[in-house]
Amino acid sequence: MTTLPPTRAGRRTRAEASLALIETKELLIRVGMELLTERGFTSTGLDAILKRATVPKGSFYHYFKNKEDFGLQVMQAYDEYFRKKLDRWLLDERTEPLQRLRNFVEDAKQGMARHSFSRGCLIGNFGQEVGALPAPYREAMNHILQAWEFRVANCLGAAQQRGTIAADVDCQSLSTFFWIGWEGAVLRAKMMRKAEPMDVFLNGFVTGLP
Amino acid sequence: MTTLPPTRAGRRTRAEASLALIETKELLIRVGMELLTERGFTSTGLDAILKRATVPKGSFYHYFKNKEDFGLQVMQAYDEYFRKKLDRWLLDERTEPLQRLRNFVEDAKQGMARHSFSRGCLIGNFGQEVGALPAPYREAMNHILQAWEFRVANCLGAAQQRGTIAADVDCQSLSTFFWIGWEGAVLRAKMMRKAEPMDVFLNGFVTGLP
Repeated sequence: MTTLPPTRAGRRTRAEASLALIETKELLIRVGMELLTERGFTSTGLDAILKRATVPKGSFYHYFKNKEDFGLQVMQAYDEYFRKKLDRWLLDERTEPLQRLRNFVEDAKQGMARHSFSRGCLIGNFGQEVGALPAPYREAMNHILQAWEFRVANCLGAAQQRGTIAADVDCQSLSTFFWIGWEGAVLRAKMMRKAEPMDVFLNGFVTGLP
Repeated sequence: MTTLPPTRAGRRTRAEASLALIETKELLIRVGMELLTERGFTSTGLDAILKRATVPKGSFYHYFKNKEDFGLQVMQAYDEYFRKKLDRWLLDERTEPLQRLRNFVEDAKQGMARHSFSRGCLIGNFGQEVGALPAPYREAMNHILQAWEFRVANCLGAAQQRGTIAADVDCQSLSTFFWIGWEGAVLRAKMMRKAEPMDVFLNGFVTGLP
């Protein structure tokens, strides 16, 4: 076993410094998720991000090439967070598949209510302003939505195996239909500042299932 | 019959001047509709509007108190234009009611294609950024959507009278479901730069009708 060299008081060890770096980057990404789900990309200035994170501009450029790079990394982090959320609900094998979808919706409603319906879906926000976004964003967004659709399609497939959904239905198309409408529901919930549109959409979707 | 006083060459009559005023205001509103359906309210600067309309700032303030007032008038003009569009398709009594809805969707697809899917729905755009908009906008947007929902509900009611939709269904709720998903479909079409999501949504909606 080697002995670590003694550190001077007030001077961080390499491990501590490296942890601080990770923390600063994570903080910026988290603040980015907050602001970009509230206001979108174009109308969120770098200054607003730095101010909320209380991080100096120099630090920002240590982690990110520019705002475009930052936005892309925020999108990737959001996707990762959201896939975990979807998996937590949709892979819950103790629960009947359509109930899993209902549980996801319930969780999303609570999440929106927690922030007084001011934050929607990052991908929905970016979609609305896609014409003003850096070109690579569009492809990234479509990839992300495909991954989310894949998860809901699998859940609907599980419902199909149990006979809850007709056997001849294409669950992939049904999932695409779900996500198209679901982004509309999140948008409308934000507009009305209430969860009702999310319930209306889910009920309409489930009622219309073949 | 009175004789109009002769006008000096290069000087406009009062009627001409008044027509020019109306034209400038209409031009500003039209340019506002274009830019706001493309980019939303927050990220569209007044300068971009004046530049596209080639109207000086002084003229703008002759017609509008400020950008907030302008945005509200653009929203009202968009609503008026859109109600007419809905009425044109949905009140077409020569056509079977669900086909009227299909015709509206077809027209919307063509409209989006005409602008390479860069322009979505003004109300959808505003909804996404509602937290950053002037407070009176939210109520105006909800009113507008109610008026659109009313029109689709009537069309679904006509389908119900002909027995195409089950008699015990609440067409108002069904129309709310339609509009929630439809805004999502327009958003997705913009994101993917193709009309497919609008077809997927309409087919999913019609297939699921009770």
